[in-house]
Amino acid sequence: MPDFPSSGSRIVGILGGMGPRATVDFYDKLVEHTPATRDQEHLRVVIWADPTVPSRQEALLADGTDPTPWLEEGLHQLTGAGAEIVVVPCNTVHAYIAPLMKHRPVEFLSIIDVTVAAIQRQQAQRVGILATDGALAAGVFQQALRRAGIAWILPSPDDQRGLMNLVESVKAGRVDGSHLGQLAGILRHLRRDGATLTITGCTEISALASSLPTEVGAELIDPSLELALATIHRARLPSEAEIPPEKTETR
Amino acid sequence: MPDFPSSGSRIVGILGGMGPRATVDFYDKLVEHTPATRDQEHLRVVIWADPTVPSRQEALLADGTDPTPWLEEGLHQLTGAGAEIVVVPCNTVHAYIAPLMKHRPVEFLSIIDVTVAAIQRQQAQRVGILATDGALAAGVFQQALRRAGIAWILPSPDDQRGLMNLVESVKAGRVDGSHLGQLAGILRHLRRDGATLTITGCTEISALASSLPTEVGAELIDPSLELALATIHRARLPSEAEIPPEKTETR
Repeated sequence: MPDFPSSGSRIVGILGGMGPRATVDFYDKLVEHTPATRDQEHLRVVIWADPTVPSRQEALLADGTDPTPWLEEGLHQLTGAGAEIVVVPCNTVHAYIAPLMKHRPVEFLSIIDVTVAAIQRQQAQRVGILATDGALAAGVFQQALRRAGIAWILPSPDDQRGLMNLVESVKAGRVDGSHLGQLAGILRHLRRDGATLTITGCTEISALASSLPTEVGAELIDPSLELALATIHRARLPSEAEIPPEKTETR
Repeated sequence: MPDFPSSGSRIVGILGGMGPRATVDFYDKLVEHTPATRDQEHLRVVIWADPTVPSRQEALLADGTDPTPWLEEGLHQLTGAGAEIVVVPCNTVHAYIAPLMKHRPVEFLSIIDVTVAAIQRQQAQRVGILATDGALAAGVFQQALRRAGIAWILPSPDDQRGLMNLVESVKAGRVDGSHLGQLAGILRHLRRDGATLTITGCTEISALASSLPTEVGAELIDPSLELALATIHRARLPSEAEIPPEKTETR
């Protein structure tokens, strides 16, 4: 392996493809927010993007194929390529990820945990959750919010159905102004019901929300962006294993 | 390895990071142009993005560090992860790539070759070349155009200096309307000098040019887009090794 004198950063592994547009959006944010004035200051990244992972919705809601073997294969590829930090820019699949990360010699940053940490920093008392039916059924956000003592509200059943249609439209690449208007309407309802902040807890919705007007965007917390920022922060820190022995001994 | 019943496509390996924004832009185009209505119809992609590869400009023009070991490491990672088709969304580095691809058991699509093929399809007689000083010095586009019998013109020395400043601005993430205006001016000069089509032969310039007005865009040939389209086409075809024996015997 060549020597990399210009980068002390750790290699970031992105388990992506769920869906592919969400991976593009996350990688874009990762590059955009890395403080760098030339190529060589950017992070080394390896991406395994397998969009053929079976639908997480069907697995969680309709007894569809368990995506676990596909996820294991991806993690195997990423660690084999030297990834030192692993992230997964898909909220829903976090219903499956945590047990798979145990006993792997890499740091794992959960999109759910970094999002809840960001909400705590903003001291929001009640947040709205925009997430897929599958993620809601698995409770990925609700469990983490409960542990943090933060109240949440969900869209009405009608709005939730509309949201799932929006997700499908983004996945199919069919998005226009009417979809943005629909998303703005769902957010208005959550605000009316007391949410001071809303999680765009599905990477397709994060991608769509980036086209909303700034004043609406200010009320959103984007897990994809929070994960990008946390990834940049962690990748530029040395791992604990790299802390010189004299420092670890004095702790 | 799990079975992937929903995708007959071959795994695409992207040797990226040169620079990282150009890789984001290429991956975006790859996803955007893949005919798919759901995740599972998209291509499986593995990306090795190492922005710490030494500057290709300095290597080609100022006797800087040879990037070859970094490229070999990346190719090793991509083939190790199962890539069946390898692409490199950076024009300049193609001065180094061809010899490295020999004897590797993967299909290699050259961004230079697919661009020249697209120019031939459009039957352009004289094309402008927007490329880095390093790519021009190495002659990556000129050699391929000469073989295809296509004439070319280059920007004036002043415009070429301006172009290199634009590349640095994109790499540094500092881009505004004035940069777009400058690019439009360079293109106007090439058109005045007889170019009916101009190659945006640097992935940073491709990314910038995507914000130009449509009428200007129509005169451009974007190697990054051509590579994305060719990659999608090839990845969805079976490899020669997968053609049933009876078919190969009758050729």
